Amino acid sequence: MTELTAQYCEACQVGAPRITQQEIDEFMPQIPDWKTVEIAGVQRLQRQYQCKNFARALDFANKVGELAEKEDHHPSILVEYGKVTLTWWTHKIKGLHVNDFIMAARSDQLL
Amino acid sequence: MTELTAQYCEACQVGAPRITQQEIDEFMPQIPDWKTVEIAGVQRLQRQYQCKNFARALDFANKVGELAEKEDHHPSILVEYGKVTLTWWTHKIKGLHVNDFIMAARSDQLL
Repeated sequence: MTELTAQYCEACQVGAPRITQQEIDEFMPQIPDWKTVEIAGVQRLQRQYQCKNFARALDFANKVGELAEKEDHHPSILVEYGKVTLTWWTHKIKGLHVNDFIMAARSDQLL
Repeated sequence: MTELTAQYCEACQVGAPRITQQEIDEFMPQIPDWKTVEIAGVQRLQRQYQCKNFARALDFANKVGELAEKEDHHPSILVEYGKVTLTWWTHKIKGLHVNDFIMAARSDQLL
């Protein structure tokens, strides 16, 4: 299996299949600090990053934002004093796609 | 009463009194797009801003961050595609202080 960090987002259309539980189980060891959460009925990937202060948290948010723009895939980013909570999911399929796992792994590389 | 936007945050210590409901009622007309919300037992001020896309949302978050650093008073900022949810409260008093109303009013000026 190709490392998630070596992959790029593929085009994802409405109706594309969500990732299976088996695939989730296969990918999770590559992003051990992430968990799946269900928010508003939609399964998502979430991780909280600790940062030194507010400015560092915002810096990290900007790096994630740059990555998001480049791949045209956008997370929610909660910036607070000393922490960032990052959540990835795929709007078009109201759930998780391999793209989200790729973005989670690549987000970890930005720290 | 001095306009909120003309004020700066004052030093706030643990044990400082929270803002009263009467003061809240007096200030709210100056920040009509804000509402008070209770999250984890703490009263806060919250507003959602609509932005054109993700990049604009992140731009606005950065402007708020600059203001926050200048006043050494920090909100939580949720950045999503096309919107920013901004929440102000005062950690030290676990509730609302006049500083939060000042920051809400000054945040509105950044748009």
